Amino acid sequence: MAEIITKLRTARLPFGFRAAGISSGIKENGAKDLGIVISDFPTVSAATFTTNRIKAAPVRLSQRHLRRGDIRALIVNSGNANACNGKQGFNDAKLMTQFAASSLGLEARQIFVCSTGIIGYPLPIEKVRRATPKIVEKLRVSGWKDFSRSIMTSDKVNKVCSVKTLIGGKEITITGTAKGSGMIAPNMATMLAFFVTDAAISETDLRENTKLVVNETFNCISVDGDMSTNDTVVVLANGAAKNRRPKKGSKDLNHFTEALKNVMLDLAKQLVRDGEGASKFIRIEVEGASSDLDAKKVARAVAESSLVKCSWNGSDPNWGRVIDAVGYSGARVDENKVDIYFGPLAAAINGVVAPTPIGKLKAQVSKKEFTLRINLNIGKGVHRVFTSDLSEEYVAYNRLEYALKIQGR
Amino acid sequence: MAEIITKLRTARLPFGFRAAGISSGIKENGAKDLGIVISDFPTVSAATFTTNRIKAAPVRLSQRHLRRGDIRALIVNSGNANACNGKQGFNDAKLMTQFAASSLGLEARQIFVCSTGIIGYPLPIEKVRRATPKIVEKLRVSGWKDFSRSIMTSDKVNKVCSVKTLIGGKEITITGTAKGSGMIAPNMATMLAFFVTDAAISETDLRENTKLVVNETFNCISVDGDMSTNDTVVVLANGAAKNRRPKKGSKDLNHFTEALKNVMLDLAKQLVRDGEGASKFIRIEVEGASSDLDAKKVARAVAESSLVKCSWNGSDPNWGRVIDAVGYSGARVDENKVDIYFGPLAAAINGVVAPTPIGKLKAQVSKKEFTLRINLNIGKGVHRVFTSDLSEEYVAYNRLEYALKIQGR
Repeated sequence: MAEIITKLRTARLPFGFRAAGISSGIKENGAKDLGIVISDFPTVSAATFTTNRIKAAPVRLSQRHLRRGDIRALIVNSGNANACNGKQGFNDAKLMTQFAASSLGLEARQIFVCSTGIIGYPLPIEKVRRATPKIVEKLRVSGWKDFSRSIMTSDKVNKVCSVKTLIGGKEITITGTAKGSGMIAPNMATMLAFFVTDAAISETDLRENTKLVVNETFNCISVDGDMSTNDTVVVLANGAAKNRRPKKGSKDLNHFTEALKNVMLDLAKQLVRDGEGASKFIRIEVEGASSDLDAKKVARAVAESSLVKCSWNGSDPNWGRVIDAVGYSGARVDENKVDIYFGPLAAAINGVVAPTPIGKLKAQVSKKEFTLRINLNIGKGVHRVFTSDLSEEYVAYNRLEYALKIQGR
Repeated sequence: MAEIITKLRTARLPFGFRAAGISSGIKENGAKDLGIVISDFPTVSAATFTTNRIKAAPVRLSQRHLRRGDIRALIVNSGNANACNGKQGFNDAKLMTQFAASSLGLEARQIFVCSTGIIGYPLPIEKVRRATPKIVEKLRVSGWKDFSRSIMTSDKVNKVCSVKTLIGGKEITITGTAKGSGMIAPNMATMLAFFVTDAAISETDLRENTKLVVNETFNCISVDGDMSTNDTVVVLANGAAKNRRPKKGSKDLNHFTEALKNVMLDLAKQLVRDGEGASKFIRIEVEGASSDLDAKKVARAVAESSLVKCSWNGSDPNWGRVIDAVGYSGARVDENKVDIYFGPLAAAINGVVAPTPIGKLKAQVSKKEFTLRINLNIGKGVHRVFTSDLSEEYVAYNRLEYALKIQGR
């Protein structure tokens, strides 16, 4: 099946979507900070949100709009998260949807709104008001790349991905972008990800599949274990490809799911690679746990251990720190059965050091990308997580951010 | 009550205890790495151990010896954790108790054994065998300070504390030492702590009180959130002060508990101050939670957030990251009620920014020691945690350790 899913070399907007990104002045350095996506046709939509109990105003408003359905456009700003701003924050989120609606000729309830950036300082809403008509004008000449740039915060590169495939003989495109490189943890993080597709699909199927695929992709990455107040993944499908809607359980629907997974996984990995201060990309594969949940606990404990992440930064095959994290993960463990591999090479077998020469293990961990495999050998539970190392650059960046951003106050 | 508990300026061994620390060659740099403590009289004992499911061999052996009671001596090595060494590890731990027993004229089951250092490499047991008779000879001239030095790993300073107080009119002394500065998390960490007292007390009371006090002291600190395979706290009481054993519920017993807490809290704080790369000491006080457990979840999430800890390192009063961690802690939270204070100054009130000028908040966070107070304002649950910041030095140190230590292999 996968062979007829084709990754495109450059991001391409699916039929019936337009996008733009500009600078509104929220970011003081003049970088792009306001983006819009609009579908020329009605859409069905799906979204997943942060599970943080502190939710930003745009998250709460968008959840409300999503429940009513009939979403036609997104408006997104970066540079300010509009989180923890009380009633004013909620009002500002509403205003953003109203500005977009009036410039686009839609209802405010048809607009999905997201914000990302600093927490706890009021959004400069006047800047958004002034910029919205301008960005709508840009929809003719701007595009997905500009939109993807407008949502960046500490990201060093903008992240896009497009795949095309056939559903019922018709070519459909799924295009996505994601941002975020700090506050990245499983179950949504300072992460925004937007997907548009011209596939025709029922809203129920889109929502079920989005939930499923987000769980296997964005919820399996961890940079620093912090989960943000603003995380959102949105998918809009407008049916402009005119394929026949795939039926529940059909090969075509599986096909769509596979294509969506392709794009989401690609972007999830891009997020980890661009993690704040990250110099390495590590795939953690846990197997043989007594349940999938136990495997997840192990993968997450290892991915979030500062000591383990520091050792990777130093290209140090420190399996002792790994097994230590396995032990406190909360999962059932028999220490005499734990195997640990860096790439294909055993570091520990049955819980004790393997005979592999340390130089060979070090060569594995020195790679820009490697796999850490942990087999608990007591059951069939599996889980996989993508993560990065912890570097001095991460600390250097994060010890400064806030003070710099509000120095004008 | 507290006023008659006196902290001594230098560590003093209680009556009937001797201690020593020497270099056995486990550490290649010639630093002290083997320590012994012996009581000249029978003792009652108490201990708490790591809750990590991967337990080092000496932890498992000492648990067995503790159950039988009648502990007379401790033997401790640093430089090698004797963890994840399989049957050989358990055998080596047994050998350590046998070496100590034969040199001291005791039974192996009367010896409590601890190890700390690198995980997963066999203990150089021959070095311990050769050194044990030598260290026993040193018991006449060595002392608590040498012992405290012999248990250090990444610690920059050795940590000791002594208090004296009166129980039933007799002066008793409690003296302790602790080591550990990485892998420090609540519920025991790469942390060893040893306490000796000449107080007379029943074993039941000593065990109950130790558990209680460890929970309020050592289990309330966090440096990096990693919990080790070797954590152990031991208390030996030999009754040499000849006080009348305090009765259950008596003022005298409360008194002993208070004195023990005094020493344990002092050493717990010393551990945090000497945390790997730590430049700050932060007291996190959570109040108004719907339960003590919820307060603990909040305190721990904040204390373990890399982003929060980086901001402290930069003297950055970033309450947005704090409230974000509060939100994902798992505790019940009403974001419109959360108050956050740095020292006495409000950073956020009712979940939104407080009018305190940022410069004043920054001055609080710039201090070497400050309190972060979080009031959830929805209940009566409280918890307190001591923690440190996350620095580039922490990463620089931990990216190298293992490779350096086993470079000879």
